[in-house]
Amino acid sequence: MDFGDRLAATVRSVGSTTCVGLDPHLDRLPGGHPTSRSEAAASARAFCLGVIDAVAGVVAAVKPQMAFFEALGSDGVAALEEVCAYAKRSGLIVVLDGKRGDIGSTAEAYAHAMLDDDGPLAADAATLSPYLGAESLSPFGLRCHRGKGLFVLVRTSNPGSGAWQAPEPRGMAHDVASWIARQNGGCSEWGPVGAVVGATLGPEVSAWREAMPKAWFLVPGFGAQGADEEDVRRHQGADGMGALIVSARGVLFPPEGRDGDDWPEQVAMRARRFARTFALRAT
Amino acid sequence: MDFGDRLAATVRSVGSTTCVGLDPHLDRLPGGHPTSRSEAAASARAFCLGVIDAVAGVVAAVKPQMAFFEALGSDGVAALEEVCAYAKRSGLIVVLDGKRGDIGSTAEAYAHAMLDDDGPLAADAATLSPYLGAESLSPFGLRCHRGKGLFVLVRTSNPGSGAWQAPEPRGMAHDVASWIARQNGGCSEWGPVGAVVGATLGPEVSAWREAMPKAWFLVPGFGAQGADEEDVRRHQGADGMGALIVSARGVLFPPEGRDGDDWPEQVAMRARRFARTFALRAT
Repeated sequence: MDFGDRLAATVRSVGSTTCVGLDPHLDRLPGGHPTSRSEAAASARAFCLGVIDAVAGVVAAVKPQMAFFEALGSDGVAALEEVCAYAKRSGLIVVLDGKRGDIGSTAEAYAHAMLDDDGPLAADAATLSPYLGAESLSPFGLRCHRGKGLFVLVRTSNPGSGAWQAPEPRGMAHDVASWIARQNGGCSEWGPVGAVVGATLGPEVSAWREAMPKAWFLVPGFGAQGADEEDVRRHQGADGMGALIVSARGVLFPPEGRDGDDWPEQVAMRARRFARTFALRAT
Repeated sequence: MDFGDRLAATVRSVGSTTCVGLDPHLDRLPGGHPTSRSEAAASARAFCLGVIDAVAGVVAAVKPQMAFFEALGSDGVAALEEVCAYAKRSGLIVVLDGKRGDIGSTAEAYAHAMLDDDGPLAADAATLSPYLGAESLSPFGLRCHRGKGLFVLVRTSNPGSGAWQAPEPRGMAHDVASWIARQNGGCSEWGPVGAVVGATLGPEVSAWREAMPKAWFLVPGFGAQGADEEDVRRHQGADGMGALIVSARGVLFPPEGRDGDDWPEQVAMRARRFARTFALRAT
């Protein structure tokens, strides 16, 4: 099944367009402070597996952030491999957040690393950065024929992103959006090539939706980065479909400090609240 | 010492502005075909350590391509850690090619992973992709105060790069170049923030040099990607300084097939020829 349809089916099955970011900030994990990289990797792994147990069946997807695992070296990457495999076994869609972008055989190596089922991470979808042009995205695009999906950065949620991405009258974001729309052209409902469109953009969002009518939006910025529920509704259709809303810190950690021993229950409770906020609606 | 000056000193000490890309293409390594990821990682590690022995003292820098190691999973990343450490011990400048780009705590995690001396890779410099704006580069910029360097993608060497990076009258590449020039503003000779400016751009290069007078250029595209010696001279000053010219396949592998058992001598011979081509010149 194509990725866009597979994501839609998973969203319908859990009844919510939500994705939990797996960002194992070491200084906020429950338990003590690890004293080595391998100890830290073990903590990150245990925490993420616990989070997966807590959110499986509640949200549609998880989004492991590669940077936090890479900061722990090869032990961290080994933990990431286990986290991705465990999330898939738990029925969650795995969106691997690496924002990679390169050309030729290098792009091919990244695509293999992130997406191929005989590769180390075998995720369902990957985030990509488009600075090197359309040809940097193509090796990843080939994986769409094997059921994999992409989320290409278009407009990000950080305050200073607009000046470089979308200056008047036309920035690179417009070229990227046109490319995405073309990739999804032949699809009946949701195509395999999605777009990262931040939650903090305000009314600008409707222009991006119009430019990419069949693209799933991956929407960071809810909660911790300042966007509220109404901001995020702009990305969705009337029934709530079409935008996968991301929350990381808001689900993983309490607003102040750390959870105690009951952290799996606390994570599950926050995940249920997040999933209810973005439940699919009858139309 | 600041990175720009440190790179200049290394270039002067070897007498050549050259950098060998460490791209361990599995299907071109000397020896048999590995049958597992851990075997492949061992082959990649052994090959890269041999290349480092062959090129140390001949070229100024090596540029490990993270994608090829990541494709081999956590064993590949463990090999990359060893390769980076060994290259530094061998007196080579290590430019880690990952083209990362993200924001906030994620960018901080990547910067730690790639550059910090107490992190897993501890490279001298990292390549970055600027799509998320100036604030995505800042966490890396902080490392410049600790002797580390950056090479930010400005204009890449792939044929289709111009349409998105530098459309008329002004594309994102111009914003990135202005930012780089500002970062290096206070430096007397070469600043710590370099630019990736491809070898295949032709006369356009002089405008980028004018825009970033104190930036080291990292120049891919020589040889395999079609640029010749004359193309690359455009990036350099009269004495040959200011541009670190990259060759990967041209040094690592013979034009056809694989080297035999004498591969270390063959790599050394090709590296010496490459270094002579871009030897510093008396002015």
